[in-house]
Amino acid sequence: MEQEFTSQVLESAVTELSRLPGVGRKTALRLALHLLRRDEREVTALGESLIRLRRDICYCRQCHNISENDTCAICASPMRDHRTVCVVENVKDVMSIENTGQYNGVYHVLGGLISPIDGIGPDSLEIASLVERIAAGGVDEVILALSSTMEGDTTNFYIFRRLSAYPDLKLTQLARGMSVGNEIEYTDEVTLGRSLLNRVPFADSFKS
Amino acid sequence: MEQEFTSQVLESAVTELSRLPGVGRKTALRLALHLLRRDEREVTALGESLIRLRRDICYCRQCHNISENDTCAICASPMRDHRTVCVVENVKDVMSIENTGQYNGVYHVLGGLISPIDGIGPDSLEIASLVERIAAGGVDEVILALSSTMEGDTTNFYIFRRLSAYPDLKLTQLARGMSVGNEIEYTDEVTLGRSLLNRVPFADSFKS
Repeated sequence: MEQEFTSQVLESAVTELSRLPGVGRKTALRLALHLLRRDEREVTALGESLIRLRRDICYCRQCHNISENDTCAICASPMRDHRTVCVVENVKDVMSIENTGQYNGVYHVLGGLISPIDGIGPDSLEIASLVERIAAGGVDEVILALSSTMEGDTTNFYIFRRLSAYPDLKLTQLARGMSVGNEIEYTDEVTLGRSLLNRVPFADSFKS
Repeated sequence: MEQEFTSQVLESAVTELSRLPGVGRKTALRLALHLLRRDEREVTALGESLIRLRRDICYCRQCHNISENDTCAICASPMRDHRTVCVVENVKDVMSIENTGQYNGVYHVLGGLISPIDGIGPDSLEIASLVERIAAGGVDEVILALSSTMEGDTTNFYIFRRLSAYPDLKLTQLARGMSVGNEIEYTDEVTLGRSLLNRVPFADSFKS
């Protein structure tokens, strides 16, 4: 049942809030009533930051990460290793990898994974631009950092095929194995099998 | 762990969104990335509706419901029965009662319930203004429509005491009993006991 409010201003705020993912009209009303109790400056800051977000953010021409300029801060940085390109599904994955503090190369954001069932083919993704980037030269290694799912594997394989034309390029993918902190008893068989096959010399595990 | 974003605009949107109740930084980021994919017009509409919400909504001088004017639409309406005042905890309860379509009187919004444990005494609530409203005359019945909780009962009793100075005033409260659609087997004993004590003539249950 749709509630109707006596106030048109409240009605419009609730309608707009309920367009957010996972927010129904009940939650939207709760949020709106919460905002009514807050300081006017705080609510204005929220509203303006959302307007600015959509207006000022664009995508990096090089790696398709979000950016406030044509070229993002990572691609523009002379401190990063531009000869290593890490291929990720989306902007969130860039953040996840940045937060590990273990990566100093640059990125290439695909904008999704190949998924025929959802109608997403290679042409919907930034794969052609990745191939162009490699063809232009200057890249030694491409790291495929995609999810360990059917769609991730399909996309990995498709990119592997497209990049096989560059035999000098080193093509790697994220290691798959037991999560750090997991017990063997609770690790699924496929993962455990993969961990066994891809076992590494013991001394290597001390490398940062 | 707090994530840091390369974009200051994104950082500020996530920070502002995560001030919302029930929204952590992870959800805030998900919302922000969702907004980035939406139409610019839609995001601007959301931002502006929030700013307008806080700026344009005030509280009715008479009943303390939210309103866009000094007097809310319900208090201003000549179609409503101004001799019956329904006392509720908050703005949401006004909406719930309006949505039953069973009430044609006016309201008085307390802005909370008496709760010594949370430091909320009668003076933090709109109880003095309720007593003034009754003292001014013109009201035949006050309906106490508060939650069936310890705080609700305390507040009911406090208001009952304050209004006992007006012996001509009819003071009623919401009926407590089995929920419509509930089975006896699953109704708690206190509620079932109350339903028995407050049983009504069978013929009355057909009255709208």
